[in-house]
Amino acid sequence: MKPLRPWILGMGCTPVGEHWSQSLYDLATEAIHAALADAGVDRVDALVVGNMLSGVLNRQENLAAALADRAGLSGIEAIKVEAACASGGAALQVGAAMVASHTCERVLVLGVEKMTDADPAAVIQGLAYAADFESETIIGASFSGLSALLTSLYLQATGATPEDLSVFVRQAHQHAIGNPWAMYRHAVTAEEWGASPMISDPLRLLDCTPLCDGAAAVVLGRPGDLHRHEHRPVEIASIAGAVETIALAQRPQPLRLKAVEQSVARALERAEVSLPMLDLTEFHDAFPVMTALSLEAAGFMPAGTGWRYFDAAADAHLRIPIQTMGGLKARGHPVGATGVYQVIEATLQLQGRAGENQVLGAKTAMTQCSGGLGGNVFTSILRQATP
Amino acid sequence: MKPLRPWILGMGCTPVGEHWSQSLYDLATEAIHAALADAGVDRVDALVVGNMLSGVLNRQENLAAALADRAGLSGIEAIKVEAACASGGAALQVGAAMVASHTCERVLVLGVEKMTDADPAAVIQGLAYAADFESETIIGASFSGLSALLTSLYLQATGATPEDLSVFVRQAHQHAIGNPWAMYRHAVTAEEWGASPMISDPLRLLDCTPLCDGAAAVVLGRPGDLHRHEHRPVEIASIAGAVETIALAQRPQPLRLKAVEQSVARALERAEVSLPMLDLTEFHDAFPVMTALSLEAAGFMPAGTGWRYFDAAADAHLRIPIQTMGGLKARGHPVGATGVYQVIEATLQLQGRAGENQVLGAKTAMTQCSGGLGGNVFTSILRQATP
Repeated sequence: MKPLRPWILGMGCTPVGEHWSQSLYDLATEAIHAALADAGVDRVDALVVGNMLSGVLNRQENLAAALADRAGLSGIEAIKVEAACASGGAALQVGAAMVASHTCERVLVLGVEKMTDADPAAVIQGLAYAADFESETIIGASFSGLSALLTSLYLQATGATPEDLSVFVRQAHQHAIGNPWAMYRHAVTAEEWGASPMISDPLRLLDCTPLCDGAAAVVLGRPGDLHRHEHRPVEIASIAGAVETIALAQRPQPLRLKAVEQSVARALERAEVSLPMLDLTEFHDAFPVMTALSLEAAGFMPAGTGWRYFDAAADAHLRIPIQTMGGLKARGHPVGATGVYQVIEATLQLQGRAGENQVLGAKTAMTQCSGGLGGNVFTSILRQATP
Repeated sequence: MKPLRPWILGMGCTPVGEHWSQSLYDLATEAIHAALADAGVDRVDALVVGNMLSGVLNRQENLAAALADRAGLSGIEAIKVEAACASGGAALQVGAAMVASHTCERVLVLGVEKMTDADPAAVIQGLAYAADFESETIIGASFSGLSALLTSLYLQATGATPEDLSVFVRQAHQHAIGNPWAMYRHAVTAEEWGASPMISDPLRLLDCTPLCDGAAAVVLGRPGDLHRHEHRPVEIASIAGAVETIALAQRPQPLRLKAVEQSVARALERAEVSLPMLDLTEFHDAFPVMTALSLEAAGFMPAGTGWRYFDAAADAHLRIPIQTMGGLKARGHPVGATGVYQVIEATLQLQGRAGENQVLGAKTAMTQCSGGLGGNVFTSILRQATP
């Protein structure tokens, strides 16, 4: 049977940043109302919230009910979904399944994270809950620390240098200039990168995504259920997840992101799309090594060569624009919201609304977010729909 | 289009209790393996985990990935779902939607909560995150305290006494005797109830559900996908949620559980079932007032009379067995697992396997769990399927 492929009926988000005057509830409400207005509807049947740390940092669970009510959506169905930094992607999968299963006609998928109101030490600790408690968190590992270990391993195995990897950082910042809700709309030079302080050797400050706040929302509905017709409709051709062992030290091949491999393969199969049909992709560039490894695992570059993606002399299976609106690095990474920001940005590309960052002729896009260092990965395939 | 209604292919759970020698991971793995063995399969496509407090109490988010890997299910899709005390019900809805949308063929839905390893004060505080942070939690409200306020209001409005409401407690304990995984398999007399210490006036210790641990799992699949044929197949005819304002003081009619009304109406409509077709129901009896109010909101008793449900002289729209295996009160309430325990118990009834608690001729059952005091409610309709 042909699965129902939901359409994106509308979308909206807050800028990413340090929002000292807005609460978790304020940010969520702003994004929800923006998405409803963009869709031209005042009601959805369900709210699915992607969020990682509302309990740990904001002392609010029962989060989906709390947000639905504040946004004036009392009475609907509401669910919070957690998959660490991939919570937004997981929420999109749940929202899409609720539409495709005919459980609901219209679902609003919201990603939200409010990190700046808590003690930064508590935020760092909370983020480490994405790691494995029994073998990583319990011994005091932070997420930057674990990423530094993975980066060291990659540099050792490939011969790349930290400078080589920083090409992903510089490109992300360049692209963020054209993204109206990006946190860092400024370029970064190789010198600025090299002068930024060491956080966890070999990772410098400018390698790391920021602690920040943000909320992003999309309204999903059945094909054809459009209430505003200004923009070309976009369908979610597929979403697929995959998990692997969280603890880095327990992975037989830590430089092979198996969950990326599997979720990409699944997403392509469900969408009936092959890799060469993609026009752009948004990866989970929380740290540059994740971009390099994801390019390899997804099949764009041979193993060990992801860091040479922009090097025209390097072999590549496929070379298409990535992180076209600044990625996690420069748009910012409000953890549970990231997967939804990615989908909004890719949708703008498919609608020809990406301004100076427009990928010409973009018809099909892939977005991917990762809970932890590839522990739980969700990959979405979006494509232009026929109105 | 006729929606696909998933079947319950297998189920398994741990006893509910204080499991000092088992971790969150151990409990989850035990329930997952028991459910897979019961279903006669060694693989599912996805794991959906209902859990409320793994971040706050167990310092483990990315929970679904962590549990999938430990249970030997690396590579599958995995998602955690949170809706406070209704997390298990929400996870069932997500799992059912993933099957019904043809995203996956077979999904394991696990509910798990590990509360005893943390400082009890932290557990009490964590549970209060199900309340509204801005107006309830921030002023120090505990969940028992809020329930006591709601109970007082109910007693004042109806003329019922705390003794009247305790009939639900006594019946739950009586039923738990026949439930092999219940935490309290012993009767409670009116005298014992009256002699138990006051926790939050008018709630006594024996009115409150215990802090406890437990994990419960069901394997959902497509109709007919049975690998073991000893027991009659059961289908999930529907699951539906509804939310209302969490903060008690902000509800226009706090004695009317609107989310119960709406989720029951939705679940019945989706299942194409009417209330008189139900043979038994499991309510969210975290406190006796919730049973009384839920009986009223679901349509079993006129408003204000739920406390007289067992009184043959009282008017009732419908009087069928409730809390047939001990309910939250006596089976125990490992928060995120409760919704899944309810479905397992109702399935046993529909399969004629409920032993001394068997409801004769039971063909259709309703289960319901509530995040907070009716803030987010999920209602399931289960029924015998035709093999």
